[in-house]
Amino acid sequence: MNKKLILRMLGSILLVEAVCMLPSLILAIAHGEHSWFALLVSMLACAACALPMRFLVKPQSANLRAREGFLVVTLAWLLMSFFGALPFMISGFIPNFFDAFFEAVSGFTTTGATTLTAGQFNSETVHGMDYGIGFWRAFTHWIGGMGVLVLTLALLPRFTGRSAHLVRAESPGPSLSKIAPKMTDSAKILYIIYGVLTLLEFVALMLCGLEPYDAALHAVSNAGTGGFSNRANSIAYYNNPAAEIVITVFMVLFSTNLALYFALVTGRWRDVVRNEELKWFLFMYFGSALVIAGIVLAPVYSGNAGDALRHACFNVATVMSTTGFTIDSFTDPNYWPIAAHGIILCLMFCGACVGSTAGGIKTMRVALMLKQSKREIGRTFNPRRVQRVRFEGRGIDEGMLHQVAVFCFVYVGLVLVGAMLISFDGKFDLISNFTASLTCVSNIGPCFGAGASGFSEFGSFSKVVMSILMLAGRLELFPILAFFHRDAWRRA
Amino acid sequence: MNKKLILRMLGSILLVEAVCMLPSLILAIAHGEHSWFALLVSMLACAACALPMRFLVKPQSANLRAREGFLVVTLAWLLMSFFGALPFMISGFIPNFFDAFFEAVSGFTTTGATTLTAGQFNSETVHGMDYGIGFWRAFTHWIGGMGVLVLTLALLPRFTGRSAHLVRAESPGPSLSKIAPKMTDSAKILYIIYGVLTLLEFVALMLCGLEPYDAALHAVSNAGTGGFSNRANSIAYYNNPAAEIVITVFMVLFSTNLALYFALVTGRWRDVVRNEELKWFLFMYFGSALVIAGIVLAPVYSGNAGDALRHACFNVATVMSTTGFTIDSFTDPNYWPIAAHGIILCLMFCGACVGSTAGGIKTMRVALMLKQSKREIGRTFNPRRVQRVRFEGRGIDEGMLHQVAVFCFVYVGLVLVGAMLISFDGKFDLISNFTASLTCVSNIGPCFGAGASGFSEFGSFSKVVMSILMLAGRLELFPILAFFHRDAWRRA
Repeated sequence: MNKKLILRMLGSILLVEAVCMLPSLILAIAHGEHSWFALLVSMLACAACALPMRFLVKPQSANLRAREGFLVVTLAWLLMSFFGALPFMISGFIPNFFDAFFEAVSGFTTTGATTLTAGQFNSETVHGMDYGIGFWRAFTHWIGGMGVLVLTLALLPRFTGRSAHLVRAESPGPSLSKIAPKMTDSAKILYIIYGVLTLLEFVALMLCGLEPYDAALHAVSNAGTGGFSNRANSIAYYNNPAAEIVITVFMVLFSTNLALYFALVTGRWRDVVRNEELKWFLFMYFGSALVIAGIVLAPVYSGNAGDALRHACFNVATVMSTTGFTIDSFTDPNYWPIAAHGIILCLMFCGACVGSTAGGIKTMRVALMLKQSKREIGRTFNPRRVQRVRFEGRGIDEGMLHQVAVFCFVYVGLVLVGAMLISFDGKFDLISNFTASLTCVSNIGPCFGAGASGFSEFGSFSKVVMSILMLAGRLELFPILAFFHRDAWRRA
Repeated sequence: MNKKLILRMLGSILLVEAVCMLPSLILAIAHGEHSWFALLVSMLACAACALPMRFLVKPQSANLRAREGFLVVTLAWLLMSFFGALPFMISGFIPNFFDAFFEAVSGFTTTGATTLTAGQFNSETVHGMDYGIGFWRAFTHWIGGMGVLVLTLALLPRFTGRSAHLVRAESPGPSLSKIAPKMTDSAKILYIIYGVLTLLEFVALMLCGLEPYDAALHAVSNAGTGGFSNRANSIAYYNNPAAEIVITVFMVLFSTNLALYFALVTGRWRDVVRNEELKWFLFMYFGSALVIAGIVLAPVYSGNAGDALRHACFNVATVMSTTGFTIDSFTDPNYWPIAAHGIILCLMFCGACVGSTAGGIKTMRVALMLKQSKREIGRTFNPRRVQRVRFEGRGIDEGMLHQVAVFCFVYVGLVLVGAMLISFDGKFDLISNFTASLTCVSNIGPCFGAGASGFSEFGSFSKVVMSILMLAGRLELFPILAFFHRDAWRRA
């Protein structure tokens, strides 16, 4: 175990996190808020840990093995969340450690589930969260969306010799490696795309009439497909259909593989048009939105087709992109009919495209599962028939199909076990616990039942469970679960 | 397509069904009930369809291909359910066709979900279901438990030349073929075991003080792991702890692979002791029961450990064996804490052993999935490691593991799609719809929410969906789903 290298890499990552606190600190100082102190202390604490790890530890070798890569990723996310929780605790907005840690994990994993209650948002209330802390909260989405390791890779030269392990651990899927021959170049290109899209959304939201602060906060929150807002009732606060449409469009844009934008910029239109995962995603998105708008919501919006379509498109996007912004209480059976909830429940498992900032099982996996399920059903009659499953024009290896199937089993199993553990809280009904677990693993945010109005009422044990579920979901299960496997602790 | 052979086989099966109505007819006549007429008419209608198909159709060849085998099974179960619904309709107990068909499907698939309301049971009420119809309702469990094709195979000589297809379609799993070289002999042996166990339960229930009719009805209902009772509040009616313990024991006995009893009788004790699936099942059963009794129920039964244990053992058995008898309202959050419901929800997916009369994903599949999930998680660190999954002391073929994983995906997918379709009813909340779908696919019976007190209030569309879900669950998904695959309708 190359402990020194691991320490050094963790130091680099924490250093990046400390730097990431700077915009929030500046905001707090600019607004003359008390919380500048909390942010400064957190930043210094983070840097004080990071600097010796980064510069005093001298690893003999820069060779990183797979197991060490996963260890770095898991520890990095835990440490990031710990230091990310400090501003909430020190400023006193979220004094309880479990709540603050939950909030930070929810931020970095881009879940957007909150332990705050309505009075704590910076609307008109006295106890509202201030500008600096509020921005830090939303900015964790932006950091976590693309992955802090990828960010570190993009910012720091010579972060590590072999970075493929790390990237595989933090953002699985075949997308990242394809952009450029060198991983660091890929990371830079992706972050430029990510930044430009975020900026575009910021400008678009400004044009819709949002304050610059609100526009920036929602742009970074949306980019990470997170969902934290500085308003207790999220996007509904603005009562601004134009902004809702902009956010819907960007939720869909951030649900797609970011590498496709690079293909667009470099003139490879065909790659985008032919992208099979994108077609599946758009088919599922528009299919669900149209069914909900056309069939289910017609009586609710009593003939106002535009409103029905806008609300359906927004809410389907918020669930599929796993963002979690809200413009209405669509999880409330008194507002949206149960028929819509049945569809939403299915979509909560799916998520969006591989290579996006969204969570969930991912469209590609769902498509591969549907294709191989169809093949398996067809084999009922012809058990000996050999048939390749094709995706993106290529025949897919059986081993990969098998892996995807096991992944889905572990995913559903984790949601069920999570629901079971949360049930031990005994506070809420089964649908609350089940969808709370699901929304955490899928990194969405909103859920049905008690959690629909925030997670503050859940017990500490449940919050720890949900924090683990969010991390497991964000890192696509195996890096987190592997640490419960005895092989992780065996000598190599 | 050997249509004549298919017709002839369906004729045989319906003939067996007509004969199966005889005990109920005799009961009705013996008790001087009006419903003798309904049973006689149904029996004659069934026989009138069956006889010409069986004896007038002369197939040129007795060669049955796989696709035809699956067609026979699917059509047989649909026709059986249709004729099985006739006594309910003609007698007027369940005049609505959708309800009566649902009840018959629920019976044959051993689900035990009912559309009856409390007043329709033959307790002390005037409108109660009478002896003949009540017995027929429970007896459908007994017929469906082991499979009507296996029954036909056991009863009729020269039913078909190659019966392996049929048995594979109706009761998948590797158990049946192992007992005897000839499939018909295996079927006979299994039915003898099944009958003897049913008889033993009948005697045991009599000894507990139940009336002969009630003992017989619950014995056949239990044997098929169905759950229909002639009492509106099921086993709770008797308020008889001894009977509850007997039923608990038999629910567990009927959850195990019936081939193991043959091994016991023929002196192969070791096969039973070494049976890995049995160990997994008993571990899950006792583990869940003890956690529920010891941790969750302690406050409910306020220190009465015996009562807590008896109720926990009964209810875990009723869910895992997918029977559905009840002695209390354990799905009511006001009675059992939510922590128990979280565990019950997970168990509702699992079911019992392969080769039993129970439904669900089956213990063997769950165990294989857990083992390969563990392997996959271990591979996170060592992606190139080759490791066989072993079960029952043998290395399991990768293709089979892959199939099992896809099966689980289709299972969960079907539950979700079912919940979505039932949600279009718009009558009940999400947990009612979700667990109604789950209880149908797993052939259990009880569920959480609205369905807990019976399925009569669901709409006709939902009842059709649930009937399909029950059939799909009983036939282990693929035979039913295959008919939605275009290959089923293509020329060979």
